[in-house]
Amino acid sequence: MSDAHVARAQIRVDPFGGHRVIIAPDRANRPYAYAKSEPPVEHGDCPFCPGRESETPPEIVAVRDNAPDSRGWLARVVPNKFPALNHATDVFESEAPWEHIEPGLGAHEVLIEHPDHRWTWADATAEEALRVLKILRDRAATHALDKRWAYTQIFRNEGREAGASLAHPHTQILSLPFVPLPLVREAESFGAHQANVGHCLMCDVIERERESGDRWIAGNGRAAAFAPFAPRFAYETWIAPTVHEARFEESADEVLADVAQILIDVARRMRRVLWRFDHNWVLHTQPQNPLLPGVFHWHIEWTTRLGRAAGFERATDTYINSVPPEVAAASLRAAGE
Amino acid sequence: MSDAHVARAQIRVDPFGGHRVIIAPDRANRPYAYAKSEPPVEHGDCPFCPGRESETPPEIVAVRDNAPDSRGWLARVVPNKFPALNHATDVFESEAPWEHIEPGLGAHEVLIEHPDHRWTWADATAEEALRVLKILRDRAATHALDKRWAYTQIFRNEGREAGASLAHPHTQILSLPFVPLPLVREAESFGAHQANVGHCLMCDVIERERESGDRWIAGNGRAAAFAPFAPRFAYETWIAPTVHEARFEESADEVLADVAQILIDVARRMRRVLWRFDHNWVLHTQPQNPLLPGVFHWHIEWTTRLGRAAGFERATDTYINSVPPEVAAASLRAAGE
Repeated sequence: MSDAHVARAQIRVDPFGGHRVIIAPDRANRPYAYAKSEPPVEHGDCPFCPGRESETPPEIVAVRDNAPDSRGWLARVVPNKFPALNHATDVFESEAPWEHIEPGLGAHEVLIEHPDHRWTWADATAEEALRVLKILRDRAATHALDKRWAYTQIFRNEGREAGASLAHPHTQILSLPFVPLPLVREAESFGAHQANVGHCLMCDVIERERESGDRWIAGNGRAAAFAPFAPRFAYETWIAPTVHEARFEESADEVLADVAQILIDVARRMRRVLWRFDHNWVLHTQPQNPLLPGVFHWHIEWTTRLGRAAGFERATDTYINSVPPEVAAASLRAAGE
Repeated sequence: MSDAHVARAQIRVDPFGGHRVIIAPDRANRPYAYAKSEPPVEHGDCPFCPGRESETPPEIVAVRDNAPDSRGWLARVVPNKFPALNHATDVFESEAPWEHIEPGLGAHEVLIEHPDHRWTWADATAEEALRVLKILRDRAATHALDKRWAYTQIFRNEGREAGASLAHPHTQILSLPFVPLPLVREAESFGAHQANVGHCLMCDVIERERESGDRWIAGNGRAAAFAPFAPRFAYETWIAPTVHEARFEESADEVLADVAQILIDVARRMRRVLWRFDHNWVLHTQPQNPLLPGVFHWHIEWTTRLGRAAGFERATDTYINSVPPEVAAASLRAAGE
């Protein structure tokens, strides 16, 4: 790819979500008047640490050989004590025709990934990482049996900048009674590509990224990591199975093992390259009741917290990213072991 | 409005943008493991302060009686030295059919609102606030003459949490060669309401909010502030003219004077009620070349920085807000002078 690709401002359209992104390398040079954040001070009372099991709601599942809600677990899933949505079934009458309120119905769970408060994905063993992914898959599959849910969102917040409220390593599972718009748009893009070209859009993208190499970061037998063509955030990295799987809920164990290894690898590269490790990763899978079953390709979007979305992003849903994905991928490639 | 409206989780649909918002009052009680942010340390070198005019690109317009780019101004507009978009006209060839790149064409200006580094909207006189709005209107009107621009976004970032890189009070003007999706959706909502009901959606909303009072914050002759029905952010406040005006670019002086007074009033209420004043405000106006000229109603969206968008928001474009707008509006109403 030519230098022109990375030196000048440009606008890119995300082939999956359809949103535009402004790639503005010059913005990285602007002055900054504030001190960089200090590492946040954290207090000692962690309700997710071993010995404090009674501070969470009773566990739903756990990896352990002993009694529920005692010490001795390797991972625990509990209901979120402060759920975004719950079993509210209140029916609201609209007071004006344009005021539409739906019941706040949902299921919100927390997977406490590891007993060690300081554990991160960059420290994980292959076994630990696979354990986490299998639990998430199995919880998502169980949620999928409940016909009230249209979509199950799996997401992970690490660090204060990433919006985490607790520091202990955890992932959240939130089942929703509606399909969020970005998933609607992704499903439409997969459908259009399948109709027009006869292939899976993600399978085609992975093949092209592997061949061209500009945005490639890492790969193994059944999984890959690459910088997406139109990243909203600096160093944004997508992780996907390289075999076609539409639904994470039905992912095969051997695929999850390869994805787990790539996730560990990406976490280690991020820790080496970036000055701030705070991040989110989110999982996109085919929504329930798809128009075109199988026409989707699940993936994980790993996004960093190097900058902050400001007024422009709030006004336009359009992100300004000062690190072209080709530059980010080159750094992350070079940070391999 | 009944207590059921504010006590339980609920999902609301924004009548303008069509997005869903999760109102989850219980979330406000969750534990938080990190220290609250310290006020950021700021260094002394401000390129927007009087006496350092040579550090910005030459001014486009200024309110002053003396020579350009010297001291003595009341407000200055300069090109952004680190523009998100510029005059790049590079044409990119698509390397794969799904890779769409457009030239990074745009115009990005900064309005330095006041010579005093510490000035805020909560300190503004009516004359100062009106001066700022008139300059913004006139710059937007000038940009509208350039047929390359499909939309001019005006936005303001105040404070580190709000994504500001410089602390000196300023507003930005960024003209884009495309219409951002939220504006497309708002224009569609205005069009649908006009077609179905024969009125302006915003005029109807303002009338209803004024009568019901639950989400009303403040009003004067030609402008009002209210909490929107489906706010993405805690204490989100919208400010709009109460007379019908589609385009900010064509707003009348007497309307701007009333909007300026409401903006000052909102800023003062926010400073009294909230523990963190960092905020953004953004202006939505009718895009260029509208399908239905006049069928829009310009407004300002003032959003706070009390929490951080986390993985769920990044995954779903759906916001979780723990402060129902009826609760926020009641606090802001009570904080009036």
